[in-house]
Amino acid sequence: MPARFFIDYQNQNDWLPLAGTLQSPINIDTSLAETVTAREASSIKLFFDSNQRSFFNNGQNLQLLCHGKARLNGRRFSLVQLHFHAESEHTIDQQQFPLEGHFLYRAANGQTAVVAVLYTIGRHNSAFEQVLQQFANENAEGECALDTLLPMDKSYYHYLGSLTTPPLTENVEWYVLQQTMSVSAEQVAKFEKIHGKNCRNLQPLNDRSVLHFAEK
Amino acid sequence: MPARFFIDYQNQNDWLPLAGTLQSPINIDTSLAETVTAREASSIKLFFDSNQRSFFNNGQNLQLLCHGKARLNGRRFSLVQLHFHAESEHTIDQQQFPLEGHFLYRAANGQTAVVAVLYTIGRHNSAFEQVLQQFANENAEGECALDTLLPMDKSYYHYLGSLTTPPLTENVEWYVLQQTMSVSAEQVAKFEKIHGKNCRNLQPLNDRSVLHFAEK
Repeated sequence: MPARFFIDYQNQNDWLPLAGTLQSPINIDTSLAETVTAREASSIKLFFDSNQRSFFNNGQNLQLLCHGKARLNGRRFSLVQLHFHAESEHTIDQQQFPLEGHFLYRAANGQTAVVAVLYTIGRHNSAFEQVLQQFANENAEGECALDTLLPMDKSYYHYLGSLTTPPLTENVEWYVLQQTMSVSAEQVAKFEKIHGKNCRNLQPLNDRSVLHFAEK
Repeated sequence: MPARFFIDYQNQNDWLPLAGTLQSPINIDTSLAETVTAREASSIKLFFDSNQRSFFNNGQNLQLLCHGKARLNGRRFSLVQLHFHAESEHTIDQQQFPLEGHFLYRAANGQTAVVAVLYTIGRHNSAFEQVLQQFANENAEGECALDTLLPMDKSYYHYLGSLTTPPLTENVEWYVLQQTMSVSAEQVAKFEKIHGKNCRNLQPLNDRSVLHFAEK
């Protein structure tokens, strides 16, 4: 066996997997994001089943289970759950937002993708109000009118990261929407009262690329 | 903060990432593979640039650098390198093959994908002969006529796994081609003489799905 071939196949248990270099959240430096065109990437399409317009609080980390489908970069995903973080986990050019929503999707091959929405303080958000009511009612179902939680324009920043809570599993596809939505200051206060502050610290980008896809 | 909310945001350094549950290679149990249709997945298209028909042995683990593009499940990838394992790393219904080729691709977002080809013992393979010659000539460039390394029919088994050598990075998309190609017994012997046996042990599937996409 030539000396340059240094992998020891006789002692495979000594191969320690390295973990933790592709973590989330990150700061998105918009000046460094690489623009991708419709030839290289494709738009986000989210579908919420009007026959199954309910979400469900299973009491685990204030996640709401909800039905929905998505086409993300040409592949089909199903919505698993949605949840929120205050303050925001991702920052845009070092700016932190008061609230961030995570719509967590999974594909048939097990690939996880999160569509993230950043919220500014402004008008009362009726859909977020329903979410807050839902958090108070464990094991209860509520209406799933998600429309005002998501912007119409789905232009996004995309990178490969991780879950932001343990087990921090890597290679999660992140689609952080460029357009923000608003919630009221009272709503954020109400959320923090239920939830406590729950944002993970920023993680190093390391040698990852952040891509930018603009809808128009 | 309610008791059910058990993630400690004050001590984030105590969150240890779990690693090592999505490893490769695996045995592919064809009876358990989930068939996906053209609506849910799409075919593999591989393109090799006829103006850059060369590959290059940089002396690292007998990988050959080569130019090529691919469209894998609707997204664009670029070929990074190709290399071989003897015996095969993946098994199909517990059957191991004498040789396995790995065509390693990367997308703009950093996603890694490997198209794997399994070889049986049979006719001499002219493209593999070029590969063997290339391994003997470090820092030399050779012709990149890959056609006889890959089957025409690109039906595949797909799952999410890892690199099979350290750092064993996870969430590599695997496309293990269903149709095998052949190399001669002499060629495998020649490869093993240069390379030594270099197949990683089978890894547990855990709760992953294996998908099957048939071209026709």
